[in-house]
Amino acid sequence: MNGADALLDTLLANGVSVCFANPGTSEMQFVSALDRRPAMRSVLCLFEGVATGAADGFGRMAKAPACTLLHLGPGYGNGIANLHNARRAFTPIVNVVGDHATYHRKYDAPLNSDIQTLVGPNSIWARSADTADSVGRLTAEAIAASYGPPGGPVALLLPADAAWTQTSTSPVKTSAPPRSATPADRVSDTAKMIRSARKPALLIGGDACLAEGLREAGRISARGIPVFCDTFVARQPRGATVFSPKRMPYYAETALAELEGVDLLVLAGTAAPVAFFAYPDRPSDLVPSGCRVEVLASRSENAIQALQELGDALEAPVSEQGNAFDVSQEPRGVASTAACGASIARHLPEGAIICDDSVTSGAAINAACLTAAPHEVLGLTGGAIGIAMPMAIGAAIASPGRKVIALSGDGSAMYTPQALWTMAREALDITVVVFANRSYRILHMEMKRTGAGGAGPAAKQLLDLGNPVIDWAGLAKGMGVSAFRCETAEQFDAAFESAMRESGPKLIEVSL
Amino acid sequence: MNGADALLDTLLANGVSVCFANPGTSEMQFVSALDRRPAMRSVLCLFEGVATGAADGFGRMAKAPACTLLHLGPGYGNGIANLHNARRAFTPIVNVVGDHATYHRKYDAPLNSDIQTLVGPNSIWARSADTADSVGRLTAEAIAASYGPPGGPVALLLPADAAWTQTSTSPVKTSAPPRSATPADRVSDTAKMIRSARKPALLIGGDACLAEGLREAGRISARGIPVFCDTFVARQPRGATVFSPKRMPYYAETALAELEGVDLLVLAGTAAPVAFFAYPDRPSDLVPSGCRVEVLASRSENAIQALQELGDALEAPVSEQGNAFDVSQEPRGVASTAACGASIARHLPEGAIICDDSVTSGAAINAACLTAAPHEVLGLTGGAIGIAMPMAIGAAIASPGRKVIALSGDGSAMYTPQALWTMAREALDITVVVFANRSYRILHMEMKRTGAGGAGPAAKQLLDLGNPVIDWAGLAKGMGVSAFRCETAEQFDAAFESAMRESGPKLIEVSL
Repeated sequence: MNGADALLDTLLANGVSVCFANPGTSEMQFVSALDRRPAMRSVLCLFEGVATGAADGFGRMAKAPACTLLHLGPGYGNGIANLHNARRAFTPIVNVVGDHATYHRKYDAPLNSDIQTLVGPNSIWARSADTADSVGRLTAEAIAASYGPPGGPVALLLPADAAWTQTSTSPVKTSAPPRSATPADRVSDTAKMIRSARKPALLIGGDACLAEGLREAGRISARGIPVFCDTFVARQPRGATVFSPKRMPYYAETALAELEGVDLLVLAGTAAPVAFFAYPDRPSDLVPSGCRVEVLASRSENAIQALQELGDALEAPVSEQGNAFDVSQEPRGVASTAACGASIARHLPEGAIICDDSVTSGAAINAACLTAAPHEVLGLTGGAIGIAMPMAIGAAIASPGRKVIALSGDGSAMYTPQALWTMAREALDITVVVFANRSYRILHMEMKRTGAGGAGPAAKQLLDLGNPVIDWAGLAKGMGVSAFRCETAEQFDAAFESAMRESGPKLIEVSL
Repeated sequence: MNGADALLDTLLANGVSVCFANPGTSEMQFVSALDRRPAMRSVLCLFEGVATGAADGFGRMAKAPACTLLHLGPGYGNGIANLHNARRAFTPIVNVVGDHATYHRKYDAPLNSDIQTLVGPNSIWARSADTADSVGRLTAEAIAASYGPPGGPVALLLPADAAWTQTSTSPVKTSAPPRSATPADRVSDTAKMIRSARKPALLIGGDACLAEGLREAGRISARGIPVFCDTFVARQPRGATVFSPKRMPYYAETALAELEGVDLLVLAGTAAPVAFFAYPDRPSDLVPSGCRVEVLASRSENAIQALQELGDALEAPVSEQGNAFDVSQEPRGVASTAACGASIARHLPEGAIICDDSVTSGAAINAACLTAAPHEVLGLTGGAIGIAMPMAIGAAIASPGRKVIALSGDGSAMYTPQALWTMAREALDITVVVFANRSYRILHMEMKRTGAGGAGPAAKQLLDLGNPVIDWAGLAKGMGVSAFRCETAEQFDAAFESAMRESGPKLIEVSL
């Protein structure tokens, strides 16, 4: 048994049994060890941003880490953008980064780089397993660390010699540390403050947006206290009968208007709201002046239990129900985002998982899906576009039997088109919808808001994706995924309905 | 005039007039300023790895930096792999990384990250321009730093408020620092050592592999001293009449055999040879034991002048000529890499630029092109695959009128397929050849060499790109590039001949 075997044994002993991989020479021992450990499912991704985004989708659904296998500094580098999103989603991920043999590092061969520094900004734990005997112990540490709370990506460097050297260590068991409960007096104090506040509000995020958290938040809402959720949430149920908190608006000025007059903002599973970007003459801090901010449960604490106890303290007996099921809107005419939203809502099967990176197309879809069959949404937590398709891969592997839908802008989808190949290879039940508006449309809006004025000829060139037009259906077919292009609402409705009825990967391009 | 204007003015004042860009909200002032500075050519890339690879290709050909425009930490992250290659090529690049407004950083908004740490491993200089008044001065510092010597990527962080705040600073002029000459006594000492050595050899790299350096190295070769060059060189002329040093073999055991018995290794423009990867029971250091290593010129010194002076000291009057022009080999039968090499050699126009990321297909092409019309090759200096197509974009923009050819493996090309879109958009005169062997073929070889044994079923899965088969011609057409698939040598010969005759982007897929 060598260090690579020890790594796989400890991963498997702790339930980490999926690996999103793009290996190179320094990872050959790990790859070879996979032949001896058939319990580990390895999924080849032809670009590391697909592997890390898939691990994020897996972790959000499984509430447990997958691992990735990445090739030295450049391989890790390619995965950084989606690890940034995973860090902001607090998703447990164990990144195994192959490295040169320990004694080879000093020669500074062409692929050598400062991996320890590179992994820092997006890892909540990072170590190099420099000997075969240390691999099992450090792998267990890495897994435990990835759970947090509140969890996040970790980086375990595996030098080639630690992987190929023999060891007789046993698999090391570990477990997820529990989340600590909110102290009872904090709950009763918060309840008192709410009772005496003029205009209290609750802001939830993270685990508080999972099914049980939403139910408890719905009880508090039924007591007349407005409940908001973060603008971008890692994982959140949505649809008919599901309590639907108000989403904190993306734009600072709209968010400020929503919170106007609030004198007490109670936080559960999240932090105080801030503007996504700074703009000249607009505040960064979205908490109204004079408003008291009270942390009921931090991101590391058990926010669901805290909400339940707060509901009890407020004597909130029943949960506010979400919307009634209603998919009666008929999609007609041009394939607008509103029409597509109506179609998605009509045909969405119960329990579907929507991976959402649709940027400017998203609002209309969200509105329509509030009355659709209950489903879950995985959002763009870190603002790094290009995650919908990769995340869908991980979500599908973590949740067999559930339909997965990736909603993406065309600008976003161009970041990680290689994801389509892995969907085809693994025959995953994913429907990708690309909203092709042929521009970085959000930037047309942002340009004015940052005080930069309207776009002139040179600026327009940098926001335009229409020259040449990207044939999304063609790209998908080129990677083995059946695809359709829709120009009308009726075409989209038929294509989406058929994709929901059939199994396997599909791509639908909507020409907006 | 705001900070963004000041940035562009100082770039333009120092001849930096091409920007490979993928902007976001925090870069809107820069984008807007482009409307007021038409002298700056901005090239939209739909993925940052394309932008950084293009900047590398530009810098290698122009011997001066282009700039990139990247969106915060995740945008920079996507560009890291090709910046790793640029660092190893010592290519000057000015990376402009947009950041949150300085006062907004502390709110840790979703797109916030530790950019200063992230840029460290692949930057030879990094600073944040935190005020509008500092932008011009720091931009000039960044440009000067990028030249080295020996040069490399630098990172200039531009917070949004520094970009939008007014300033009245003037453009700051700077210049590339000169390379220092090798001291005269070092040249004469080296000549003496060479004369008294039993088996001396010369190893060249970097600038010593440019046209003038090769000519001088050819003189030394004509005195009976074997001349080697680095395995991967940033830029090197090749073909008929061009002196062709022996390439240091990629595999350590072959390299050791080549250098056996050498008792003096003289270095010019490079460092002592090391193994690309470590392997069990093979050395990392490729210098034979007992061999003296003598630095004639470091990477930072004027290696060309040093070689000329060494040639004079050795009384080497004429340069050894390269091969005679010979493209008589007829490509016939299956489209093997040898047959493709023969076709490339036959039709290659003089002055063509080959961007090479062809991994296992490369050796046969190299052999055939040694007798082709004189051209230049830009190599994979850092081992991070996915650079050929991006690098071709930058090379084409730096060298109008010269035909550019990108040679890529299918595994490599899948890293940055978005490059095809920019080629079409800019109507660049690039011919892409994708050698589709449908596997990470090099890893089949490496697996055995690392002692990991043969690939079993699970391992094979991770080295195989054939399920599904990628339709490269389809992908290229989907992004606006004309494309052809070839199965036979005759088909490839016709397609390549026609691509060399016509102008504009083309892709030829070779089914190996």
